[in-house]
Amino acid sequence: MNFGMIKNLCGQVIRFEAIFMGLSLIVSFIYGEYESTVVFSATIAVMLVLSFILTYKKPLKRSFYAKEGLITVSLSWVIISLFGAMPFFLSGSIPSFIDSLFESISGFTTTGASILSDVEMLDKSILFWRSFTHWIGGMGVLMFVMAILPLSGADPLHLMRAESPGPTTEKLVPKARKTAIILYKIYIGISLLEILLLLIGGMPLYDSIVHTFGTAGTGGFSVKNASIGAYHSVYIEVVITVFMVLFGINFSAFFLLLAKKFKSFLSHEELRVYLSIVLISMIVIAVNITGTVYQRFDESIRYSSFQVASIMTTTGYATANFDQWPTLSKFLLLMLMFIGASAGSTGGGIKVSRFIIMFKAIKRQALRILHPSAVKLIKLDNIPVHEDVIRGTGVFMVVFFGITAVSTLLISFDAFDMKTTASAVVACINNIGPGLGMVSPIGNYSSFSIFSKIILFVDMLIGRLEVYPILLLLSPAIWHKRKF
Amino acid sequence: MNFGMIKNLCGQVIRFEAIFMGLSLIVSFIYGEYESTVVFSATIAVMLVLSFILTYKKPLKRSFYAKEGLITVSLSWVIISLFGAMPFFLSGSIPSFIDSLFESISGFTTTGASILSDVEMLDKSILFWRSFTHWIGGMGVLMFVMAILPLSGADPLHLMRAESPGPTTEKLVPKARKTAIILYKIYIGISLLEILLLLIGGMPLYDSIVHTFGTAGTGGFSVKNASIGAYHSVYIEVVITVFMVLFGINFSAFFLLLAKKFKSFLSHEELRVYLSIVLISMIVIAVNITGTVYQRFDESIRYSSFQVASIMTTTGYATANFDQWPTLSKFLLLMLMFIGASAGSTGGGIKVSRFIIMFKAIKRQALRILHPSAVKLIKLDNIPVHEDVIRGTGVFMVVFFGITAVSTLLISFDAFDMKTTASAVVACINNIGPGLGMVSPIGNYSSFSIFSKIILFVDMLIGRLEVYPILLLLSPAIWHKRKF
Repeated sequence: MNFGMIKNLCGQVIRFEAIFMGLSLIVSFIYGEYESTVVFSATIAVMLVLSFILTYKKPLKRSFYAKEGLITVSLSWVIISLFGAMPFFLSGSIPSFIDSLFESISGFTTTGASILSDVEMLDKSILFWRSFTHWIGGMGVLMFVMAILPLSGADPLHLMRAESPGPTTEKLVPKARKTAIILYKIYIGISLLEILLLLIGGMPLYDSIVHTFGTAGTGGFSVKNASIGAYHSVYIEVVITVFMVLFGINFSAFFLLLAKKFKSFLSHEELRVYLSIVLISMIVIAVNITGTVYQRFDESIRYSSFQVASIMTTTGYATANFDQWPTLSKFLLLMLMFIGASAGSTGGGIKVSRFIIMFKAIKRQALRILHPSAVKLIKLDNIPVHEDVIRGTGVFMVVFFGITAVSTLLISFDAFDMKTTASAVVACINNIGPGLGMVSPIGNYSSFSIFSKIILFVDMLIGRLEVYPILLLLSPAIWHKRKF
Repeated sequence: MNFGMIKNLCGQVIRFEAIFMGLSLIVSFIYGEYESTVVFSATIAVMLVLSFILTYKKPLKRSFYAKEGLITVSLSWVIISLFGAMPFFLSGSIPSFIDSLFESISGFTTTGASILSDVEMLDKSILFWRSFTHWIGGMGVLMFVMAILPLSGADPLHLMRAESPGPTTEKLVPKARKTAIILYKIYIGISLLEILLLLIGGMPLYDSIVHTFGTAGTGGFSVKNASIGAYHSVYIEVVITVFMVLFGINFSAFFLLLAKKFKSFLSHEELRVYLSIVLISMIVIAVNITGTVYQRFDESIRYSSFQVASIMTTTGYATANFDQWPTLSKFLLLMLMFIGASAGSTGGGIKVSRFIIMFKAIKRQALRILHPSAVKLIKLDNIPVHEDVIRGTGVFMVVFFGITAVSTLLISFDAFDMKTTASAVVACINNIGPGLGMVSPIGNYSSFSIFSKIILFVDMLIGRLEVYPILLLLSPAIWHKRKF
């Protein structure tokens, strides 16, 4: 294991996090929140010193394999979460360290599950940092490091593969670094557009920026207790619905648009399936809640579209408490949580493309039982999917459901009701945020025991990094000297 | 498609069902239930005539492939269920035909989900038939036909594979017919032993026989409203617990015992994992319910052992209403429902061996990410598992969870609570019977709409025949003349 390289990369990650945190420091200046200014300055200072120590000695070996890539990614996510928790804890905004860490991991993993019951009483700069973690975590920290630094020697694809979600990782352009730059350009571009449109709708600048962070990272932290529902504005709801859906799209589809490959864009398989699921779910739920929750269909479609977009993209903003909706709507939303957004987006969940691959594999399996000798390739966007990817996708789904099941059992020790227990795990591992019962959009995660909170934030990391990096970090075998 | 052969086999199946029903006819004589005597006689007469018509003309072609095997199995299960429902419907015991069919399918698939609220008011011969369907369905009707008739020309392995559960189907001896005979001998032998032990415990002969049917088939229909709890006997509970566990074991393990291969028996991987899960679950639940539901640990272990054995083997007998137990116990039982019994047993669920294969595949996948070039065979009982079986197992699990999810959505139209809705589907597709909420051990399935009942009995068939035969029967493509 190339520990020197891992140490160096972790140092770089801490440096960039310090730079990002500098923005919150500026916000604390602007709003005159001097206590927070001190907290941010101190945290940034510690991070810069640590980063200097870690990166001072250049690594001797430059060899860098998948194992190192996975460990670097999982380690650096744990490190940024630890430092990210500091402002919450040191400012006294969140008195318990475990709760601060929960909030920080929830932010970086773009989950948006909160232990806070009243966010409006917190400092603006603290809330700015809380939402900014979504934006940083959405695209990935190492991806940012990759975009900025030329990592000579180290193969950045190992990092990219471990940090960006989906069954396969393609580079948009031959160089991984250029790919990272393009992705960040798209990310920043759409984010700026959303801020602009929210401003036009009359949302204050500060609110527009933080809510864009939450939308872009598909996170869901709001600065209002009533989330987006607090604005009572159809325009704002429509803008955020549209942008949530946009950020749930595979970024390589946007790249096709930029490259003016409109035909390829329109025939992008995952995009079509993703949009179809979103639209059908919006309509089904709207019909289901008309007459029971809302009297008029236009009201129903307004609330169902926002909630479906929010859940499917794993954002977690709310304009209604879907826990009060009929059973069918609740189950459909729970399933959308598992389906999640597109591969290569900032969203969580299992990802639409994995379901497409499995659906095709199921169809092939049925035909294979009839004709054992028939060999048929599975294609996605007319490109054959490697058999290893198909098997890996099946295994991924089973291990994902398995971790969900085991986590649910462990959380059950708290003896809350079944709905709360199961939905908390589903909402955390799929990086949504709100669930049902006590963790519904009007509730929060504060009542869980420390043990349960630890399980839940491990689940958030497992969901964001797609199982294996965290499993390997937790496995004792990786730290042994022996070769695999 | 060889329709002649399929027709002939369906005719044989109907004939054997008529012979089986003859036993209920005798029971109706013994108890002087003349109305039922008439009903059974009439149904048997119709079945014999139909069987004669279907088997009169010998099929011209003897060629018989996987496609025909799957269709024969699924068709014959639908047919036996239809005729099996007749006694309930014609005797007026169950006034609605859909309800009668639900009860019959629930019987043959060894689910044990009932729409009856008071079974004790029904004729003894009707209840005898109801429980007997468990025993018939447990080992499989076609398996019985195979054991009795020499199917020259037709390859009986196609039938065996489609009807007997598990990721792979092995023949115990080179000839499939002999395998079927051995399996039935083991089945009858253990059943007789259970009847004997129940009689010793003071259970009446009739009760001993019907409850043995329910145990052997891992069905769960009882002739008492309070199920096995009605006897208030620790001895009877222990006997039934032990036999439920026995019937959840892979029958090829018993064959190893018969062949005096004790060492192979003790090292049988699925058996060891199966028994470990049963034991650990019994203890965990006993600890969880001590102090909350029961005061003393010996009471807790008494009720937890019975319920765990009943759920894990997918039987569904009850001595306690586990819906009243703490969240942890309820979730653990729900997970045991999915795990299910061993492959090659009469039990349902996904089967322990599939979980063993997937667990090994997950481990290998994690290692493969580290070392993409490493090739490692997955072994079960020291025999390499074919890559097709591994991929098939992943696909099977995903499609199984998928059908569970879609069925839950469809049942949700009834707008019952989430617990009832989800657990009804889980309890039906895994062939358990009782679930939570309205379908708890003290409830029943009568309140569901006709639409929901149809979904649920399709789920039961999908669970019993392990997805593909029923999926193919429902797919329009198979009935087209074109070749696959």
